[in-house]
Amino acid sequence: MTLTGHNYIAGEKSAEGGELFYSVDPRTKARGELAFHSATESEVARAAEAALVAHQQMRGIASARIADLLDEIAAQIGALGDELLHTADRETGLGLPRLTGERDRTTGQMRAFAELLREGAYLRAIINSGQPTIRQMQFPVGPVAIFAASNFPFAFAVAGGDSASALAAGCPIVVKAHPGHPATSELFAQAMTAAVSAQGFPAGTFSMLQGAGIDVGQWLVAHEAIEAVGFTGSLRGGRAIFDAAAARPRPIPVYAEMGSVNPVVITQAALAARAEAIAAGLVGSVTLGSGQFCTNPGLILLEDSAASQQFIRAVSAKMEAAPAGVLLNEAVAAGLENAVSQTQANPQIELLTGGEASGGQAFCYRNTVLQTRAAAIRADSGLQTEHFGPVTLFVLCEDAADLRATINGLEGNLTSTLHAEADEAVDDLLGLLREKAGRVIWNDFPTGVAVVPAMQHGGPYPATTAPATTSVGTNAIYRFMRPIAFQNVPDALLPAPLQDANPLGILRMVDGEYSQAPLG
Amino acid sequence: MTLTGHNYIAGEKSAEGGELFYSVDPRTKARGELAFHSATESEVARAAEAALVAHQQMRGIASARIADLLDEIAAQIGALGDELLHTADRETGLGLPRLTGERDRTTGQMRAFAELLREGAYLRAIINSGQPTIRQMQFPVGPVAIFAASNFPFAFAVAGGDSASALAAGCPIVVKAHPGHPATSELFAQAMTAAVSAQGFPAGTFSMLQGAGIDVGQWLVAHEAIEAVGFTGSLRGGRAIFDAAAARPRPIPVYAEMGSVNPVVITQAALAARAEAIAAGLVGSVTLGSGQFCTNPGLILLEDSAASQQFIRAVSAKMEAAPAGVLLNEAVAAGLENAVSQTQANPQIELLTGGEASGGQAFCYRNTVLQTRAAAIRADSGLQTEHFGPVTLFVLCEDAADLRATINGLEGNLTSTLHAEADEAVDDLLGLLREKAGRVIWNDFPTGVAVVPAMQHGGPYPATTAPATTSVGTNAIYRFMRPIAFQNVPDALLPAPLQDANPLGILRMVDGEYSQAPLG
Repeated sequence: MTLTGHNYIAGEKSAEGGELFYSVDPRTKARGELAFHSATESEVARAAEAALVAHQQMRGIASARIADLLDEIAAQIGALGDELLHTADRETGLGLPRLTGERDRTTGQMRAFAELLREGAYLRAIINSGQPTIRQMQFPVGPVAIFAASNFPFAFAVAGGDSASALAAGCPIVVKAHPGHPATSELFAQAMTAAVSAQGFPAGTFSMLQGAGIDVGQWLVAHEAIEAVGFTGSLRGGRAIFDAAAARPRPIPVYAEMGSVNPVVITQAALAARAEAIAAGLVGSVTLGSGQFCTNPGLILLEDSAASQQFIRAVSAKMEAAPAGVLLNEAVAAGLENAVSQTQANPQIELLTGGEASGGQAFCYRNTVLQTRAAAIRADSGLQTEHFGPVTLFVLCEDAADLRATINGLEGNLTSTLHAEADEAVDDLLGLLREKAGRVIWNDFPTGVAVVPAMQHGGPYPATTAPATTSVGTNAIYRFMRPIAFQNVPDALLPAPLQDANPLGILRMVDGEYSQAPLG
Repeated sequence: MTLTGHNYIAGEKSAEGGELFYSVDPRTKARGELAFHSATESEVARAAEAALVAHQQMRGIASARIADLLDEIAAQIGALGDELLHTADRETGLGLPRLTGERDRTTGQMRAFAELLREGAYLRAIINSGQPTIRQMQFPVGPVAIFAASNFPFAFAVAGGDSASALAAGCPIVVKAHPGHPATSELFAQAMTAAVSAQGFPAGTFSMLQGAGIDVGQWLVAHEAIEAVGFTGSLRGGRAIFDAAAARPRPIPVYAEMGSVNPVVITQAALAARAEAIAAGLVGSVTLGSGQFCTNPGLILLEDSAASQQFIRAVSAKMEAAPAGVLLNEAVAAGLENAVSQTQANPQIELLTGGEASGGQAFCYRNTVLQTRAAAIRADSGLQTEHFGPVTLFVLCEDAADLRATINGLEGNLTSTLHAEADEAVDDLLGLLREKAGRVIWNDFPTGVAVVPAMQHGGPYPATTAPATTSVGTNAIYRFMRPIAFQNVPDALLPAPLQDANPLGILRMVDGEYSQAPLG
């Protein structure tokens, strides 16, 4: 494919702006040759307005047609071939094996949504046949703005989970690409644009805007045509978008996934039974993808004991021995250095290994282990700040009560994990951990998010701005739909899923009973 | 029952504050004798903290026990007997027949949620039995603040729909009572307190705070323990609460239902077929409850014609002939006078009847009909402001295109209505009206909201702050729940609804199939 450095607005390339930026190879810090154009305010407006036109043109479209579009996108992504992998590897340093797997996940989630749409129960059709007759189902909210993440250049980016779920909902999307991988983003934009055209969708169904700074995103969120926002990134970035959306004359919802420290509690019995296996699993999870996962285990809570201290020494040794991975880009490297420095400024923090950038020509940070006591983290909530990289903080608790009090003082997280033995009385621990997260994990590690309907990738603030929603799994579609009820509307004027005959044969709740049968 | 004028905080009466206010009979403007104490900041904090303790104590409670509480509340409300009706009638002027019906609706919705809880499918249990096994269901979010409305002293107040759905979700509630009916609120507080105690729930499960001004609400929304807010009232009040919640260090969702103008479109064919019936239905709907309904039809769109003009004259005559109803209180009367004056300040507005307070000793406003042309409402969005009372505004459109453009320019509403004939081509009209509302009504009137699962009482901003949710019907429960997923958690440690054996026999989605069967 030929890369241009342009924005993709409703099927057209556009490069109005004079603000340019470039790819940087994180392994060499070498700048790419192609200049990418940050979108201008008028380009942002054009994309949003085209999305609104597309929304109006797509009114009443059948779910099956949207399913075809999602399958086509998956095929077009596949057709990008190895160029996609090599381009992304050059821009992110994530390596071909990981990127190959992530590509499968990305096309897989497109196809999973296509399947959901063809099945039809997701519309949550409800019919009450009394007088008056009321029928409801879910409809697309309208144009959605999506902010791509840096750490998943495929699965949480231009054609990632937010895009898949918003398109599946029937919403046109305007994607703000992440400046860390603009060439990769352009390849995806080409695939999406081709798919939209091939399936005969309105051109405004998809636009992709490049942007090095925060302006493009702020213009996009403020645009009157935008009805909802999907965001994956930092707490600071997500909160800024959330605040801008809430301050609009007409506020809109922001579904921001902003990472977390993902507390892990390990009981003494678990340590006694399998300290070595837990240490190995933990180090693998902390260093996976150079620690650049939203679900990275960044806070480990243990009761203080000789066994706990030995465990921490073992983890530190393994972390020291593990090779330091490449970080995504300069911003991540600088942010990590800054976050660890701020944590170390607390005199209660002890550095066990790492704590600095590793030398060499790549963006790289040593695998880092910090340690403190529970009283310190309860006194300073700043110690719950995510270190986005291969860093974890051990927290030693005085006793079981101190452990529980510390869990109770935790902020919201995407996940919480308990390593314990099956015969321990840990009901209350699990109950406390449940309050703090969207996913509770038993004797396993939080990295690795299964893309299945039961997955919940969300959690109380500051992990997300909308804990009742998920950004992974098919339920992610409901962020971009709203129910509409029809009162007394004649059958011929109803959407097919609500008609008496149930022509699509979908599961509906009719007068309190779930059924795929026609009415009456 | 003995009324005290106190706040009810976790089972205890409390009257710390020196700010006093009184009931006023809207029929006579006479002030009641009992002084009600606005809650203080420390009373608000006590209620919120007790709710948090209750939330912790209720962790893991069975749905069936909550169902018993809801049934008990319904019984306790019934036990208040006629005193409730007479007290509310004195404070609101709504009349005994209406209040009797509203009481049935209020106890009915408590029992409907109890039934939902016993049935169990509402938990949306999802199980994926792969490796790892992921299971999710819905859990209560925690303490909920509820702001009662003035216009439904039973159904949207202390024991109204927001309270019923939040309690059903398993959340403790702190209700800010509406100052328009403090004695009625105290009776409900006594019933709720008795029910909580009789069913052995933690005292903090329910608190009720009185307050004449905005301080109590602002303190409540800002309190760290509060996790979500339910609100029914004005746009100005709802937006203030929304803004305060969004500006918290940890933002929380606000589910505010803020009323709307509920556009009604009438085609020429419908007028030709049944102008008189539509006029009668419309006048009934506009004047119902003295026009003090969120779903009051406040904006009527017609193509200009002799038939339309004759229809408007007929409606005006009927409105003039209908007796002026009593308004709820001085604030509603003053607000209505102000809103109509502001609308009349637009030179494009023509007053056909009413437009002033009616004399006499009651709070009362003449049934009012205004008229303008479509160009005026497109030029001035202020003309879409709700007049909370027996007022409607006719909008004459030049032709079919002008009608469609005007609909397209409408803000969000709770409902939109189309009166048309079955053989007309109105697909596109219905499509446009759908975009502007949560409920689309065919040849019927928007007042009267059926409390059924298919009901959607919500809509795009400014009708609500959360168009994907409803405040009427059993789906209202999802405003106060969030999903939590469990990964690899052993059966014995799982909540019963997620256990292999499905001990509650509820409907679950297991590996993509809906089933009530045990696993495996």
